Amino acid sequence: MREQFVIGIDFGTESGRAVLVDVRSGKEVAHHVTPYRHGVISERLPESDVLLKPDAYLQHPDDYLEVLETSVPSVLQQAGIKPESVVGLGIDFTSSTMVPVDRQLVPLCRKPEWNRHPHAWVKLWKHHGPKAEAEKIDRIAKERGEPWLSRYGGKVSSEWMIPKCLEILGEAPEVYHAADLFLEAADWVVALMTGEVKRNLCAAGFKSFWSKSDGYPSEDFFAALDPRFADITRTKLRGEICPVGERAGRLTPAMAERMGLRPGLPVAVGIVDAHASVLGAGAVDPGEMLLVMGTSTCHMLISDEEYEVEGISGVVEDGILPGMYAYEAGQPAVGDLFAWFIKQGVPEYVQREAQSEGMTVFQWLEQRAAQLRPGESGLLALDWFNGNRSILDDAHLSGLIIGYTLGTRPEEIFRALMEATAFGTRMIIDAYRASGLGVNQLVACGGLPQSNQLLMQIYADVTGMEIAVVSSKHTSAVGAAILGSVAAGSAEGGYDSIPEAVRRLACPRVKKFQPIPEQEKVYQRLFREYKILHDYFGRGGNDVMKRLKQIREEAGFSASGDHR
Amino acid sequence: MREQFVIGIDFGTESGRAVLVDVRSGKEVAHHVTPYRHGVISERLPESDVLLKPDAYLQHPDDYLEVLETSVPSVLQQAGIKPESVVGLGIDFTSSTMVPVDRQLVPLCRKPEWNRHPHAWVKLWKHHGPKAEAEKIDRIAKERGEPWLSRYGGKVSSEWMIPKCLEILGEAPEVYHAADLFLEAADWVVALMTGEVKRNLCAAGFKSFWSKSDGYPSEDFFAALDPRFADITRTKLRGEICPVGERAGRLTPAMAERMGLRPGLPVAVGIVDAHASVLGAGAVDPGEMLLVMGTSTCHMLISDEEYEVEGISGVVEDGILPGMYAYEAGQPAVGDLFAWFIKQGVPEYVQREAQSEGMTVFQWLEQRAAQLRPGESGLLALDWFNGNRSILDDAHLSGLIIGYTLGTRPEEIFRALMEATAFGTRMIIDAYRASGLGVNQLVACGGLPQSNQLLMQIYADVTGMEIAVVSSKHTSAVGAAILGSVAAGSAEGGYDSIPEAVRRLACPRVKKFQPIPEQEKVYQRLFREYKILHDYFGRGGNDVMKRLKQIREEAGFSASGDHR
Repeated sequence: MREQFVIGIDFGTESGRAVLVDVRSGKEVAHHVTPYRHGVISERLPESDVLLKPDAYLQHPDDYLEVLETSVPSVLQQAGIKPESVVGLGIDFTSSTMVPVDRQLVPLCRKPEWNRHPHAWVKLWKHHGPKAEAEKIDRIAKERGEPWLSRYGGKVSSEWMIPKCLEILGEAPEVYHAADLFLEAADWVVALMTGEVKRNLCAAGFKSFWSKSDGYPSEDFFAALDPRFADITRTKLRGEICPVGERAGRLTPAMAERMGLRPGLPVAVGIVDAHASVLGAGAVDPGEMLLVMGTSTCHMLISDEEYEVEGISGVVEDGILPGMYAYEAGQPAVGDLFAWFIKQGVPEYVQREAQSEGMTVFQWLEQRAAQLRPGESGLLALDWFNGNRSILDDAHLSGLIIGYTLGTRPEEIFRALMEATAFGTRMIIDAYRASGLGVNQLVACGGLPQSNQLLMQIYADVTGMEIAVVSSKHTSAVGAAILGSVAAGSAEGGYDSIPEAVRRLACPRVKKFQPIPEQEKVYQRLFREYKILHDYFGRGGNDVMKRLKQIREEAGFSASGDHR
Repeated sequence: MREQFVIGIDFGTESGRAVLVDVRSGKEVAHHVTPYRHGVISERLPESDVLLKPDAYLQHPDDYLEVLETSVPSVLQQAGIKPESVVGLGIDFTSSTMVPVDRQLVPLCRKPEWNRHPHAWVKLWKHHGPKAEAEKIDRIAKERGEPWLSRYGGKVSSEWMIPKCLEILGEAPEVYHAADLFLEAADWVVALMTGEVKRNLCAAGFKSFWSKSDGYPSEDFFAALDPRFADITRTKLRGEICPVGERAGRLTPAMAERMGLRPGLPVAVGIVDAHASVLGAGAVDPGEMLLVMGTSTCHMLISDEEYEVEGISGVVEDGILPGMYAYEAGQPAVGDLFAWFIKQGVPEYVQREAQSEGMTVFQWLEQRAAQLRPGESGLLALDWFNGNRSILDDAHLSGLIIGYTLGTRPEEIFRALMEATAFGTRMIIDAYRASGLGVNQLVACGGLPQSNQLLMQIYADVTGMEIAVVSSKHTSAVGAAILGSVAAGSAEGGYDSIPEAVRRLACPRVKKFQPIPEQEKVYQRLFREYKILHDYFGRGGNDVMKRLKQIREEAGFSASGDHR
């Protein structure tokens, strides 16, 4: 039998990566990463003197095309296969990363008349410009008793699509009017490849308030935000919303040429990156929670029932698997928190000792921290260095470390920060459970779990649950490839359903971490303390964190400076 | 007129220093420091294999003699003066630093039969062995309603004389019985120089529960601690208690020979070091609070009335000035806290930049921190890294930093720690005021104020008060010299009263820091937040700090490890 392959492409924050997967064995045959030439644009527009506001995080759409044209040919070449051996292609993307385009799907920022206008550019997911807009949406939705709000844990994030659109309307009505569509970048790339605009249900559900049962919120609601905004879902957001796993279309000859693939190749509807990981990790059984752990952590869960969970990012019917509800929660600073500490908090002697022992600072800290017993540092931290995303859903919260003595050492702080992120995850698990959802198995993927055994052991001890770690470093891309195989269908060498494709292609799990009972016991005590602090500082017992941010802003310092 | 001089000797924690002061002009003519050869003994006894417990901090009495024999001749030689030009000598000492001696005043640890026994050695002030004993004294004093307890803010410190004696009785009754006397090291050195045992009222009052009106606590009380302890004030603590400013005696020929001075030189009764600073700094007017700022801070105040102040270290009639009440409060980690941060919390790049800019890390941090406005860091800290000494008087409390973001920089943490110590001082000032004592002028002396202008400005802004900084780096030693001049009296070239000697000899004040109104305003807001956290964590709102220490000790780690 002829070998056949699928391609999955993961568009991340700093780069895009393609994987080539053997469609029978599920083996990852090749992968290639293309860093975005323009990276994250946060100070000035490319090749211009136009300065950006502190909260702006933009991207250059050409960078996405470069991934298609570079990484795709590369994986084929690495594997030494012909374009004909590829049976399908899928992509996943950060979200809500949005592209304002004209009638020909040309991003406005690529047009001479708009390219010096920040609002014409791609807004990256972490663009935090529309904070006020998100708060307005929140407030008006609450006033009106909008039923969809509860699906998002009762709070709207400035990272989502609708606030971004509203920001453009308010700050740059001329851009708003010039745009024919606002597209998720995933949907724009798929449209480029296939010539068809198909909005992916996953992003529409998680980032645009759309649901299978109710569609978008009413025009009345949008009109209450701004009369000019009333028709947005019929105008700028129009377009078919397609379930994950469908075929968006087939590769156009022009794009096939540019990507080194065959014309007519089935291309899947897009999906959000963390959500693709659920498929790539095969974490599709009810009760299996996937931790996508990188700079931040997403907590993904699939269930056949809909529950209201406190402070989650969202629940979307068919969001990942047809016929199932997909839940998302998150912690905004995990790997980022450790990176902050290594950059800003680790003394020179540690660097020196690590070097002389042939280790990275991270390894040195991990090794020393691993020698500590739970509770031995005497430290406890709240992991809100970038706010709290789930449960409290409050960007104005901040980090805390308690228990310092004159004997406190860096490896103790490092361990306390790791533990804090584990306690944060435990809070989310408890919230899922409190709502009625079962959580009985943890699966971890992303950059952190494979390289940090101590972290995984702490998570097992803190949650009291086994954690399985996924082998691949490209779980999202494999998830996208899975959707590519379903877009092909068995008739063209793929699979006819997502569950079947997941069974065949999902990444294996290599390591398992079991809770150690005596450590679990100490962490139960520490978690009780974490919870008391969590509620005191997070639920209004003492709003000092907010007041400190307020005082700070009045001192002339933009709080958004954090994100730099 | 022939020039005349007085000598003051300050026995600190790591070294002793002598100053030679012109008795007419008050000019410091020379000074000399002798580091203690054996330093602070905390791991094993000198020249032996006897290991010490984690809480033990001992000293070698020979080191004190070396100061007398080295620094005294040195200042005479530097100034080129003859022994006959010296009219008096005074000393101050850390306290309660205690020496168990035999009938000939030989320290037990200098005798072959006892020198391998830790309890035979000098217990340094910060020896924390008798924690349980201090708690027992506390408990029993409270049960019995002992009236003297309120003079110590309602709490007994393990650093004081009586807990140290009780520790010896309990752990080494053979040493207890072999000792003829337990002496403050100040009184031992004075006795060596003069041949007369004169206990100084300052230490007796602040560290041994003695008061001018009531003497020592009753035998019943001591018997309630341990029947064998009943007679301690008549046995091991016997001896005349002499007011500060009296002449203890005259230098013996043997000691005059060893010190290069003339026999018969008037020698003053000893005094506690921080208390000597009050004289050296001339901070003797009511309402003038002296901040003695070094590794820790002492807050000293003189008043003609006795008040009960919450959680102070002590109030002693005649403790510093005859006819006046002397008050002491303190913060146990100030310079120590900054040193901890510089050692354990400052990243390598700061060291590199400081070096390339030709600065110390401290200077680099201060320069960067000085560019921040109050509140700009968004951080707030509790300065309890070594517990809280005054107001809460609780060694089990720990440090806290709140307000971290992923943008938090080391200079921001540094400034937050400085601010935290200022807020701690403000709490103490407020407690003094709440009790009825006026505080309307701050005077600062010690190692920190001269070298750290930012710190002083922060203190001025946080307290809303002017701070005058004393010029000398040897304020305690000058205070001791002042007592030396009074021991001489006008008949022998000195002065007849402490106030007169202070007017003539106290160190000038060189710099003044004024509060800056707009900074004061921000600090008022931040201090409100500090107070809320102070009360929440310090007064039982959430005893998490104590529980963390409990969990830590159960994890097999001695909490006393902090002190290393």
